Amino acid sequence: MKTSSEIKVYVALIHHPVVNKKREIITSAVTGLDLHDISRVSKTYGIKAVYIVTPLADQRTLVKRLLDHWLCGAGARYNPIRTRALELIKVVASHEDAVENIRGIENIRPETVATCAGYAGKGLSYDRFREMTEEGAPYLLTFGTAWGLSEAFIENSDYVLDPISGAAGYNHLSVRSAASIIIDRVLGPNGDNEHS
Amino acid sequence: MKTSSEIKVYVALIHHPVVNKKREIITSAVTGLDLHDISRVSKTYGIKAVYIVTPLADQRTLVKRLLDHWLCGAGARYNPIRTRALELIKVVASHEDAVENIRGIENIRPETVATCAGYAGKGLSYDRFREMTEEGAPYLLTFGTAWGLSEAFIENSDYVLDPISGAAGYNHLSVRSAASIIIDRVLGPNGDNEHS
Repeated sequence: MKTSSEIKVYVALIHHPVVNKKREIITSAVTGLDLHDISRVSKTYGIKAVYIVTPLADQRTLVKRLLDHWLCGAGARYNPIRTRALELIKVVASHEDAVENIRGIENIRPETVATCAGYAGKGLSYDRFREMTEEGAPYLLTFGTAWGLSEAFIENSDYVLDPISGAAGYNHLSVRSAASIIIDRVLGPNGDNEHS
Repeated sequence: MKTSSEIKVYVALIHHPVVNKKREIITSAVTGLDLHDISRVSKTYGIKAVYIVTPLADQRTLVKRLLDHWLCGAGARYNPIRTRALELIKVVASHEDAVENIRGIENIRPETVATCAGYAGKGLSYDRFREMTEEGAPYLLTFGTAWGLSEAFIENSDYVLDPISGAAGYNHLSVRSAASIIIDRVLGPNGDNEHS
């Protein structure tokens, strides 16, 4: 098994193109707690960067101001542990910008892996994705806010992960919960002694 | 393996006694998003109820108003999916009140299972806790807000779950992420074909 320093998994949190509850394509607003929760879980599991993706310039400015507070301002003095997680965040205008940024770092285009709670096609299993990450190629794992990634976005991704299946016929997790569970399944402890 | 309808796992989100970053015992404020995220993951995995525990009467009133909005008010019409999750929530003044409520439902006192990111003692493994839940006894799984459950609270619990160990020497998850990952590890899909 590769150690986290050899694993090249990047995360993107997408605010466009995502859908609302009528399945219309929208641009969602950035939620501050998403940045904290997803950067903290990403830091815990050795993810290399977290891209906050929004085409809205004022939203990108808002995120940068929030990061300034925690990286350089009063927040950094109050809670340096949060600083270490939020340092992973990069703010970009599009998913393709995130892909290009990773290409610049890794000298190869990352393969893109979408997540979708309702995906009915042939998905990529968590075990298989884990094996792929251990082979050392870079991957960009994407999560949609609001009611999830648009259908076209999902279809244009190289892979789609299997949905999280709950026990109770109910599968409406927050993006914060879904990202936490998926990252743990792919990058958490594994092997014969799984999770123990 | 038992189905979720046979598993008697309850969750409590504790706002007192928890500690601040100086390890002083405090009462934390309720965070609205905790209620949404933790009830949604609980509903997904077949948990029987989610106790929001705070000794502050005004905080309990606040939670009940929030629940009214989603269970009966405009929120219920806007998003009935959230209603189904929030229906799991019960608001109580103390952990012991949650234990007594479960005793009334199950006719037996539940065993209590604490979670602690920094626990250095001999913890309960996720696999073992999964087996215990499948044997059918009731359990109350507790999560601390702020900087976590107080030491005395943890010591008075029947069990303490192993901490979530990340790959990167950093383990500072939000309570929303920790609860999501722990519930998935204990009640998610298992067996030879784990997570696939």
